[in-house]
Amino acid sequence: MRKSRHRQRADSVPHVAGNGLLDRRALLSQGAALAGAMSVGAVGGATGAAAEPLANEPWSMAPGIPIPAYGVPSRFEAKAARTLTNPKLEPRGSAARTPHHLLNGTITPNGLHFVIARGGFPDIDPDKHKLLIHGRVKQPTVFSVEALMRYPMVSRVTFLECGGNSAPMYSKEPIQADVQALHGLLSCAEWTGVRLSTLFEEVGVDPEAQWFLAEGADAPTMHRSIPIRKAMDDAMIVLYQNGERINPSNGYPMRLLLPGYEGNMNVKWLRRIKITDAPIMAQNETMAYTILLPSGKAWQFYYPQEVKSFISNPSPGMALKGPGFYEISGLAWSGNGRIEKVEVSADAGKSWALAALQAPVQSKALTRFRMPWNWSGGPAVLMSRATDEAGNLQPSRAAFYAERGAPKVSPNVNAFPMEHCNVISSWSVSAKGEVSNVYV
Amino acid sequence: MRKSRHRQRADSVPHVAGNGLLDRRALLSQGAALAGAMSVGAVGGATGAAAEPLANEPWSMAPGIPIPAYGVPSRFEAKAARTLTNPKLEPRGSAARTPHHLLNGTITPNGLHFVIARGGFPDIDPDKHKLLIHGRVKQPTVFSVEALMRYPMVSRVTFLECGGNSAPMYSKEPIQADVQALHGLLSCAEWTGVRLSTLFEEVGVDPEAQWFLAEGADAPTMHRSIPIRKAMDDAMIVLYQNGERINPSNGYPMRLLLPGYEGNMNVKWLRRIKITDAPIMAQNETMAYTILLPSGKAWQFYYPQEVKSFISNPSPGMALKGPGFYEISGLAWSGNGRIEKVEVSADAGKSWALAALQAPVQSKALTRFRMPWNWSGGPAVLMSRATDEAGNLQPSRAAFYAERGAPKVSPNVNAFPMEHCNVISSWSVSAKGEVSNVYV
Repeated sequence: MRKSRHRQRADSVPHVAGNGLLDRRALLSQGAALAGAMSVGAVGGATGAAAEPLANEPWSMAPGIPIPAYGVPSRFEAKAARTLTNPKLEPRGSAARTPHHLLNGTITPNGLHFVIARGGFPDIDPDKHKLLIHGRVKQPTVFSVEALMRYPMVSRVTFLECGGNSAPMYSKEPIQADVQALHGLLSCAEWTGVRLSTLFEEVGVDPEAQWFLAEGADAPTMHRSIPIRKAMDDAMIVLYQNGERINPSNGYPMRLLLPGYEGNMNVKWLRRIKITDAPIMAQNETMAYTILLPSGKAWQFYYPQEVKSFISNPSPGMALKGPGFYEISGLAWSGNGRIEKVEVSADAGKSWALAALQAPVQSKALTRFRMPWNWSGGPAVLMSRATDEAGNLQPSRAAFYAERGAPKVSPNVNAFPMEHCNVISSWSVSAKGEVSNVYV
Repeated sequence: MRKSRHRQRADSVPHVAGNGLLDRRALLSQGAALAGAMSVGAVGGATGAAAEPLANEPWSMAPGIPIPAYGVPSRFEAKAARTLTNPKLEPRGSAARTPHHLLNGTITPNGLHFVIARGGFPDIDPDKHKLLIHGRVKQPTVFSVEALMRYPMVSRVTFLECGGNSAPMYSKEPIQADVQALHGLLSCAEWTGVRLSTLFEEVGVDPEAQWFLAEGADAPTMHRSIPIRKAMDDAMIVLYQNGERINPSNGYPMRLLLPGYEGNMNVKWLRRIKITDAPIMAQNETMAYTILLPSGKAWQFYYPQEVKSFISNPSPGMALKGPGFYEISGLAWSGNGRIEKVEVSADAGKSWALAALQAPVQSKALTRFRMPWNWSGGPAVLMSRATDEAGNLQPSRAAFYAERGAPKVSPNVNAFPMEHCNVISSWSVSAKGEVSNVYV
């Protein structure tokens, strides 16, 4: 056996930016990818003789394991789990983060969707759960789950992101942690349910009303105020998540979905909507989820998650095994619509190249980007920056600090102004191949 | 409390075909959906007084359940499981069917993806698994999972369907069973992996070679012959399913994906590809998966799953609870590309109306269709028929019989000519609201 000739061939492919970023089309037509595989000159060749590298492993000589009624991942993938901040459910909130460094594609499987809860998840009997819509309406109405199931539905793929996602990126010094810890309060699913506008027409919402309150059925009773115009735009009452009924940690039997808005507003275990004249000034829109700027001004009722991206592979905590070809891959998204482009740099921002975006690029959905890279074996700093269809560009750390103020508090304290942090992430690759979080 | 006024309002909406099929746009602008909800005149109204229908349930007064590291569906959704033909793994094949009557949207969650296996699933250690590509190649090569992970990847949403799916529709008399039993060997996921063409370029496939063999690592050792042109078109080695590593029942750590081709060819637990001059004439392309026609001719190497659709809601085994509005919803797909249109009938095919297709409509992916319906309370027969972008129309039972021959064998015997059955499904709704499988 000998190592494949990937290094020489990758060198012959056109470069699109500094430090080894390769052209995607050239790669696909010239077959220059080629990394880490073992050529087996002694085996078969054009004659196709016997394949001795494939000695039968035990699993090829046994009947296997019965197919289960509900499948779970392989036992060899136990690391692909959510990290939990409160596994014993002490009397405080819980966060469960998505392991993006171990995933690929754009859908987050339901078992790994991120969760923020003020308590645990309520064990709701769907036959007893009700949704009341009242307030400034012609006809206050109670909807059972069964009743909602008869309404016209829509499906859409959209991300959900906690307003506090990426808060560790706001620390004074770069925190050495993986992307699950840094950016894991973010997920994406195909959601199916009833348009809120359909239900608002049904109950006869007062055309003069400007706001509505959404309330959850868990014991901490989440409350948020939301403008009526979002209901008339694209808000949904969600009943299904990736095809099956919504996961209990994510709102079973129903949650509010406000595509692109900060996660906290997408009230889980939804039980009440009240049409109002004004916001109710709940705790989660006054004490929290309001951003105080250095000027003393505050951003309140500040909803859309801004354009953001990060590289998930390679990412901090990983180690590259020798020079040669790698695919740089990551996620981009914006609460303001579709991703227009993602640029990648391998030389700390000196030069940038356009990444390929996985089709279909959907509005307010995670978008996978990919960029072929020939790592020389020398130091590199990998960065990605996304632009959305509204023209918003992901900011540098300096630009972000200039607007929001430099960090004043410990990164472990959940205080302002760390909400909605969308700075560019930068991963350093050492000559040893070790990947770490750096500020450039 | 009083019943809402849904029946009168739905009657005022324009009809698009007989027996209550409604116009979708009229519906959305006039708010005529309105079914089964309870108006609560005594509660709140425009003043928003207290909401006594929402007495606190136990789950609103307790801390809840700790968020788990890997979430599972609610215990109240235990019915949403695969049905198993061989739960104790006796020495024969296993089938696990997807419960489409309980799902919505287009993605099948990984736990519910259908499975056909000749044994159980092998418990493969990904660090020991290898993929050999040899035969008519310049450089026979063994790829570890780690090596494959460095190659450029793509993601795509595509259905998988067993060639024997819908075989019960070929029986002489309509079988009374739900859509899980009738059409459950069908699922859809976002798959991510390496294009087979990338690997074929890497190993230097002989340009004259026409076929390749794919072999699985499970003990029954699945073999299929596949034309090289499919590899150069859109075949993939799949490593991820809906974001996470592929489920062990569906091929972990890797499977072949041949978008649109019958499920059996998408070899799971893939361990070997051999480039050949001709098909190898394996058992699963000679004894099985070859369709003998009444003329004595046979369709061998007959790959794409034809255009098909069925209504999942309402569907056999369900019961409608009184007249009024319902959404008719189902799935359409074709191995030959995108779904162009789906037509729905509520009067046994006398009149048809165009259903709404959920965007994005993707090639060789499940497409959700929806049609608003005002059920009068009288008898109805619901049907759907799909047309794909290649112009293929789903056939009537008579047209299908004329080509393939009438059923000669028990529907429970897996023999010809029941493969690739794509006849139109018809569900009868009785005056009592009971839904059953009928032939029209």
